[in-house]
Formats: sequence, C-alpha cells, structure tokens
Amino acid sequence: MSKFWSPFVRDLEPYVPGEQPKMSRLVKLNTNEHPLGPSPRVIEAIRDAADERLRLYPDPDASELKDAIAAYYRLKPSQVFLGNGSDEVLAHLFLGLFKQDRPILFPDITYSFYKVYCGLYGIDYQTVPLNDDLAIDLADYQRPNGGLIFPNPNAPTGQPLSLDAIARVAEANPDSVVVVDEAYVDFGADTAIALVDRYANLLVVQTLSKSRALAGIRVGFAIGHEGLIEGLERVKNSFNSYPLDRLAIAAGRAAFEDEAWFQQGRKLVIDERESLNAVLNGLGFQVLPSAANFLFARHPDHSGADLALALRERGIIVRHFGKPERIQDYLRITIGRPEQNRELVQALGDILS
Amino acid sequence: MSKFWSPFVRDLEPYVPGEQPKMSRLVKLNTNEHPLGPSPRVIEAIRDAADERLRLYPDPDASELKDAIAAYYRLKPSQVFLGNGSDEVLAHLFLGLFKQDRPILFPDITYSFYKVYCGLYGIDYQTVPLNDDLAIDLADYQRPNGGLIFPNPNAPTGQPLSLDAIARVAEANPDSVVVVDEAYVDFGADTAIALVDRYANLLVVQTLSKSRALAGIRVGFAIGHEGLIEGLERVKNSFNSYPLDRLAIAAGRAAFEDEAWFQQGRKLVIDERESLNAVLNGLGFQVLPSAANFLFARHPDHSGADLALALRERGIIVRHFGKPERIQDYLRITIGRPEQNRELVQALGDILS
Repeated sequence: MSKFWSPFVRDLEPYVPGEQPKMSRLVKLNTNEHPLGPSPRVIEAIRDAADERLRLYPDPDASELKDAIAAYYRLKPSQVFLGNGSDEVLAHLFLGLFKQDRPILFPDITYSFYKVYCGLYGIDYQTVPLNDDLAIDLADYQRPNGGLIFPNPNAPTGQPLSLDAIARVAEANPDSVVVVDEAYVDFGADTAIALVDRYANLLVVQTLSKSRALAGIRVGFAIGHEGLIEGLERVKNSFNSYPLDRLAIAAGRAAFEDEAWFQQGRKLVIDERESLNAVLNGLGFQVLPSAANFLFARHPDHSGADLALALRERGIIVRHFGKPERIQDYLRITIGRPEQNRELVQALGDILS
Repeated sequence: MSKFWSPFVRDLEPYVPGEQPKMSRLVKLNTNEHPLGPSPRVIEAIRDAADERLRLYPDPDASELKDAIAAYYRLKPSQVFLGNGSDEVLAHLFLGLFKQDRPILFPDITYSFYKVYCGLYGIDYQTVPLNDDLAIDLADYQRPNGGLIFPNPNAPTGQPLSLDAIARVAEANPDSVVVVDEAYVDFGADTAIALVDRYANLLVVQTLSKSRALAGIRVGFAIGHEGLIEGLERVKNSFNSYPLDRLAIAAGRAAFEDEAWFQQGRKLVIDERESLNAVLNGLGFQVLPSAANFLFARHPDHSGADLALALRERGIIVRHFGKPERIQDYLRITIGRPEQNRELVQALGDILS
C-alpha cells in the first residue's frame, strides 16, 4: 500500500498465472503449453529479422501479420485486431467494449482473468453458474447485459460448445457484444470465425500461445466486424502504438504459413489427449470431456491438493486451482509429449497404489 | 462509430506516431531512431533464444532483465518496473498513479501521448506553458495537483533540465508522484535515477528504443521507490501477466551488458548533433539547444510545412507537428548516420538557395 497509488489500485486482485519454474528438469504440465517447439520456419523467420533493422520501430499496424491471418481465415485485414498476447487483446476489449451501464456476464468457473479486468476498469459483472455437468449452457445467459464473454472450449474445464449455440446467443443479444475466447479451439472445437460475417456483435479471440506453440512470443488476435475492430484499434492506439515488435510480427506470420507443422502438432495433442483420457479413466479418475490441450480430472478417493503435491514430489507439475469448491478436487493437466504423459501416468500409478 | 463501443471510445483522440514508411530508400529522420543497429551481442542473444523454448511462457517478472537493469544502475530489482516499450509503462502509471481527484500537470508542448492516456482513463489534467525560450520552467508547476510528468530532455524541443530543478520539484510536491520521462536522457542530460533513493514520490521512465537502438523490440522501464513499483506491478498483473516475450528479455539483458557499444553510439550521436547544429545555424536556422538525439529547428524565411514537404520530395523525412502555433514552423530532425546528415544538409542547401 502506498499513498501514491490511484485509489482503486489497493482493491485490485491481480491475476495469478501458473508457475514458470526455473528448474528445467520438471515435467511441466501446468500452463497448457504446446508439447513441441514452434515450426522451424518460425525460428528461421526470427533469426532473419534479428539484425540492424531492430533499431527501427515496427509497423504500428503489423500489417504483414494481419494480412497473413486474414488470408488464413479468408477475411479482410480490417477484421483482424492484434495484441501482445491474447491477454492484451482481452484487456482492450474489456475497456473498449464492455464498459457499459449493464453488467457483463461470464461463467462462474472460467478464465479467472475476466474478473480481474473488471476490477482494473471498474466494469460491473455477473457470473452465471456452469450446469451440473460443469458445462456452459448458453440458455442460462438470457438476461439484460452489457456484453457476454466465455471461452470455447471453456477453461479450465475443457468442454466445447456448438456453433449453433453460439449463433443463437449472438442472435438473442443483438445490442451486446458476444465474445468467444478461443484460446484452445484448435484442439477440437469449431471456431466461431465462421459466424463473424453473420453477426456484427460477435468477436472471436485467439492466441498463438497454444496451438501455434508461441507462448514465449506473445501474439493474440481478435476477429470480428470492422466496427468492433475499429473500436479496439482506437483503444490500442491510445495505449501503445507498437504492441507487437518486429520479431513477433515475423514469427506470427511464419506460424500461419506452415500448415503442415500446425496440423501435425494438433494431431499429436489430440491423440495423446485421447489415450491419456483412457488411462486416467482406467485409474479411476473422473475426466471431463475435453476439446482442449488439457484434461480436467478428479479422483474420488484423493483430494486435488494431495494429488498435486504428490505429483510435485515426483517432479511433475500440474495446475490445481483449489477454488471454488465445485472444482477443488480437480487437476488441470496439460497434454505433454508422449514420454512426459507416460511419466505422469507412472507417477499417478505409484501415488494411487 | 459503433453502438457496441464503450461510450468514452467515441471521444478518444488516439496518438499518431511518426510514419514508418515501407520504402527503405528514404532517409528516415522522423522517429528518433538510433543511427546504428543494436549491439552485436543483442543480435546473438536473440538468435540464441530463438529455439524450441519459445513454446514456453516467458518469466512473468522478466527477472533476468530486471536484475541486469538493477545491476547497471546499482539498485534493487524491486525498484525496477518493466513494460512492452515505455509507452506501456506510461499507460500503466497514468492509470495506477495518476487517477486522482486533482488534475495532473504536464507541459503544453511535450510528448503528445500524455493527453491521450488522460482521455483513455478519464484523468483530469492541466497543461503548463513552456517559457519564452520554449523550455520547461519547473517553478511554474507550483499549484495543487494529482501528479506531474515531464520529459527530460523535453520532446520535441530537446532542452534539458537540471537535477537540482527536479529535486526541488520532487521536494515541493511530497504528496504527488513526479514522473521524469527520460526517453532521450542518455544523449546529454543527467538521469534522475540518482535521486530516487531520496524521493519516494519520484519515478523515472526510460526506454531501450533510443540510446540502446531497440525500437524494434519494445522494452521500457520505470525506476523508483518500491512502493511506486508495487503499484505499477499490481496494474501490470491485472492487465497482462507476460508483457515481455522471451526474445525481448534476452535482448534487453544483452543491451545492458555491452557498455562499449552503448558509449560509442552515444558519442556518435552527440558529435553528429553538434556538427549538424553548427551547419544548420550557418544556413540561418534557429536551433533550440538539444540534449537529445534530435534537433528542433526553424528557418525565419520558410514555413515548417514547406520545408518538410521540400525535404520529402528529396527523399528525406523529418517530423513536422504543425501545431500548436508556437511550434508550427519547427522541424524535429533525428540525428542520422554521418552520410544521412550530409544528405540532409545538401538538400536543405538546395531548398534554401
């Protein structure tokens, strides 16, 4: 506490990210990173861009990367907004689109940064409980609101929504912005980018951190109607002219140009997820259906806290949220490389025996 | 305009950065970039960090870079705050420290992003006119305020302030945060980092974009009392956990480890600035005293707009702000490489003859 802070700062409850341990010997299954490295073309693009041109500012619009994303999804570049990771994209959209008279709505169990943005910008919100299956039911979102946001698949539960359900909620809320946060969509759900030309109030947020294996680079984007994108650009240009540096622009572009690598990585994650799911079931775990690069699971005979601790003692870290109560016994386990997943299974076998 | 924007968005007047032309043939003297490329050690550090580890998130605290900056200035790492360019650092400090009951104060002619942040966050401000020499006189800032911010040297005028004057203003405003924006300080002014242990209300902001030649990478930092830094960290952690990517952290650290390169670059800029100043004087220009990597100059017989246009026709771009009226005939000319400065002089000779 300092008397120099703006008054609201003392009440902020900042987001707490998953641990980034400095020991590299750990089997790190706690922050949903990609099991493989990024495409070799990305590495090459970074090395090519690392020269004396770094003395120059980047293109403030990062047009090269906007063009690549627009081409990939067959959209106009003016439908693409870029940020320094999807967290920055989310921050800007909370301020630029969600600071409304009515409260915004999001699930009670979801990405915990949403309520942090509300605290940062003084945005009123209400949470909507997940149903008994720990799934989002968009039918529960029928009330006056200043905007809606939900991940698809949801985090940390991993369950996907259908595009039909998303289309219905966009249609039922013509005066609100509906944001679909698709950080994990490439691992098994359908992207709502297919719907943005139909609904002027629909905004889709994605990241290069997960399916493009670039968590270390920080690129996120939003796709929607030009009117929404223009509002976000106004906020961005009132915050930081150059959020993406020269290397991130080059890396992001290269990532969208190596489809073979992308598909191979997705397939690996999906195959490993399905086999790990089967093994965990065999060990007595209850595992939620997942369309993400993680599984959300609990064991009827062991608390989540105990399991997380026992894994850590064996050099494996997974994410344990501990609250709210409904998920206190669940672990969120990132899908790792095959040998990491085997180490996890072996450790769980030990712990449960 | 879109009905989906938060109401304040329609009134935003975003910052307009200097042009980043796509033609590389231009002599680009418009955005105060360094004439040389970054240290070869920086390039090497980036290439070394560009590998499969990019799949992992960066250290959210970027401790490696904080440690390097703290060591360089003989401070504690807890006195260092990092951002994705100094614009992000400024944005966070406006929100986290300047959202107060009383208006903040800054010069009427200064970095034009300050009033943009006020618009973004609904911060009340008053501007204080530069004196008759177009210099900041900190004696003019004696009135109730919610905070003070000024660049040293000022932008776009380039004139420096003394540390004595800064110490006096920090002492005279014990209940306000006093921010010194030192983007250009390494080219000839004294850094107020020397004062932060004496004044708990003093915050110094710097960037790696200018004297470290890393505009293309985006790293800025603030230095001050731990209480101020903690407030900024709370805002940062409520906005984006990982504003600096792995490559920026590695590049920034290497930049602080090559003192020889840094000193050589500074000397080149200062020497070139002094000779260009003499030549411009000889051509009849009125040049403000500059401690920065640019000169701010006007010619009594030619409008600023005409000169900027005539230079552009000769392939040279400089910054012409056009407003307010007191500076409408001034050009802000970045100090380039020796041959670029010669091209500028030759072109001006042509235009004026």
